[in-house]
Amino acid sequence: MPQKPWDRLWTEVNLATMTGRSLGIIEDGAIASAGGRIAWVGREADLPAHRKATTPEVLRCGGAWLTPGFIDCHTHIVFGGDRTTDFRRRLRGESYEEIARAGGGIMSTVRATREASNDELASGAAVRAKELAAWGVTTIEVKSGYGLDLETELRMLEVAASLPGHLPVDISPTLLAAHTIPAEYKHRRSEYVRLIVDEIIPAAVGQGHATAVDAFCENIAFTPAETRTVLEAGIAAGLHGRLHADQLSDQGGGALAAAAGARSADHVEYLSPEGVGAMGAAEVSAVLLPGAAYTLGADRRPPVSALRRAGVNMALATDANPGSSPITNVGLILNLGCIQFGLTPGEALLGFTSAAAEVLALRGDRGTLEPGKRADFALWGVSDPAELCYWIGGSPLKSRVKDGVPTA
Amino acid sequence: MPQKPWDRLWTEVNLATMTGRSLGIIEDGAIASAGGRIAWVGREADLPAHRKATTPEVLRCGGAWLTPGFIDCHTHIVFGGDRTTDFRRRLRGESYEEIARAGGGIMSTVRATREASNDELASGAAVRAKELAAWGVTTIEVKSGYGLDLETELRMLEVAASLPGHLPVDISPTLLAAHTIPAEYKHRRSEYVRLIVDEIIPAAVGQGHATAVDAFCENIAFTPAETRTVLEAGIAAGLHGRLHADQLSDQGGGALAAAAGARSADHVEYLSPEGVGAMGAAEVSAVLLPGAAYTLGADRRPPVSALRRAGVNMALATDANPGSSPITNVGLILNLGCIQFGLTPGEALLGFTSAAAEVLALRGDRGTLEPGKRADFALWGVSDPAELCYWIGGSPLKSRVKDGVPTA
Repeated sequence: MPQKPWDRLWTEVNLATMTGRSLGIIEDGAIASAGGRIAWVGREADLPAHRKATTPEVLRCGGAWLTPGFIDCHTHIVFGGDRTTDFRRRLRGESYEEIARAGGGIMSTVRATREASNDELASGAAVRAKELAAWGVTTIEVKSGYGLDLETELRMLEVAASLPGHLPVDISPTLLAAHTIPAEYKHRRSEYVRLIVDEIIPAAVGQGHATAVDAFCENIAFTPAETRTVLEAGIAAGLHGRLHADQLSDQGGGALAAAAGARSADHVEYLSPEGVGAMGAAEVSAVLLPGAAYTLGADRRPPVSALRRAGVNMALATDANPGSSPITNVGLILNLGCIQFGLTPGEALLGFTSAAAEVLALRGDRGTLEPGKRADFALWGVSDPAELCYWIGGSPLKSRVKDGVPTA
Repeated sequence: MPQKPWDRLWTEVNLATMTGRSLGIIEDGAIASAGGRIAWVGREADLPAHRKATTPEVLRCGGAWLTPGFIDCHTHIVFGGDRTTDFRRRLRGESYEEIARAGGGIMSTVRATREASNDELASGAAVRAKELAAWGVTTIEVKSGYGLDLETELRMLEVAASLPGHLPVDISPTLLAAHTIPAEYKHRRSEYVRLIVDEIIPAAVGQGHATAVDAFCENIAFTPAETRTVLEAGIAAGLHGRLHADQLSDQGGGALAAAAGARSADHVEYLSPEGVGAMGAAEVSAVLLPGAAYTLGADRRPPVSALRRAGVNMALATDANPGSSPITNVGLILNLGCIQFGLTPGEALLGFTSAAAEVLALRGDRGTLEPGKRADFALWGVSDPAELCYWIGGSPLKSRVKDGVPTA
């Protein structure tokens, strides 16, 4: 059988393949794509001789470092309005909870999102997606959750799914109707949970964009019982489960994620030892979101050492959102992950690649540099991958490759 | 007498003039330059009618915000080597002081700086200056202090002064020979202080680049008495005085800066109430450097409320350096200044404009939008200046103007 021809070949490149539990470094490497997939990866010295001559496009990288395209597995980049006023308010000393209880904060974003047209929502989200892409991001998970009614939740998912029309990127939309109790259901909480279960989840599944269901289990949002009802309904309907867990208090979120069969528990600053154990046993991933901890001035840190010991898959994400993590600078998140959460640079980089792919149930398709996986790459002008976690300036991205095609 | 013709006119622009103690906002404004200086600033409605027709270049800004070009009044962007290894070491739990005492940290940068050629130093510094320029910076203070011998200290000042050959920017070089005790003088501290006073300061003054002298007063660096000797010698030789003060412990640095006649005390996390009082009485500025506090995981914050009450001029700067503040992202520093140090967005923005000009003794020349001042501007794609402190993504800079000429 004749070998499949290669479309493109990158040479003179150092590879961080992200296979296994380390960066999987191949110095003086080469990598080839065919049909948008990785066709070959290894040491340049081992490259089959005829390939270099017969591949139509050979890109010499001058010793730059190449990683899988980054995967931001927890974002809220579709929203209306902005929250500069809230920012000023927080600087006067009001807490996230106080602002939320006062009907400010997230509810002001819900109002602005409901009022915005799809085009307005998409153009704002596209700006933020492009900021992420400037940091080598090729896959973005995008949550709904600022609609909190059937129509707007579905519109948010539709807008998220439309973003590849604005830039070459893959989007994983997540239904987060259970982000907070909408004002009109304040005294009818259970009715809102029923609305999610009976109408919004089925409609979202019918719409076909969402691949996951998520809920915010917290004093200021949904109780553990309400959360479990939503998660189980979503999972039963064929969605992956995600959970905003134990961010501001110990709600038993880690154990809840495990019991409900969710793929991840996100935030987890207040995760208990029991929660760590439950997540380890059930192979639930932790998604660490230091941008929110930083922005909110949180004094708690997730139990990273315990998660590490329990072998829990640890992803890292921007949590980009207008309230608690107004951050699309992946370099800052990598740095925060190291400095404030105690990750090693290697763990931080795995957190934006293979570990993030695992959270999105895409590990077989992307997140590492292995033959057959999607040819989504980021090429970096650094002399050591750890530099990506170290210096916070402009993005050192030299080229971003989506499905084998250089896009920036 | 005929009116001087204008070179350029910016219209449909909102101005944050930074005059006085607030942002000095003029909405629907216009600003004109002539000969590299501000010729007119005010409401567009008040623009003399014939001017719009007779100015050769009119730039319509579509409602963007224009501030004075940012002034980064405390940086160490000239250095050799990099410190990614130290970064990994800090993540293993070693403190800045431990790394310094072990001869790593700053001494590894000193060795690399001594070994680097002027061209190597300049090209590295130019990359960092360009990252600052991408955030609207038009004036950068650059310290020596990684040479710690006569030849390399002078070379660093020369390299700093050469940066305008790489990009349109003004540089204020500062002699920081008293950054730390060089290894070869470890047991002859007083000899190194004499070398600074008797040889390095006079040579730097003779060289003509340095406008200020600086010293690091700390347990791991110079004693208060040594610091005062260096400061007073530099000030007597005609340089402005600066001081790395009370960063890691209370060394009485604020009072020392006041007594020695320095213009600023920088860092000041451990500044005492007496130090605040002395600075207020002597009109010594505070330069707040949250990038270092963030990177080092410091738990102390400068006494911002007390400084505010004492009427102390508060500047904000990146402290860009390879060890304790590897940051050239001004947006992050603005955000840290607000979130971690408790500045208002207005104070943070003044801290990078008029307050920073005051530190560099350039208040009469730049830092505000007033007729006669240098036409150094930053034009921002934001709907409110506070947004510059709020969202951390790419730089929202639309245009950077140096001496009346758009440069980016």
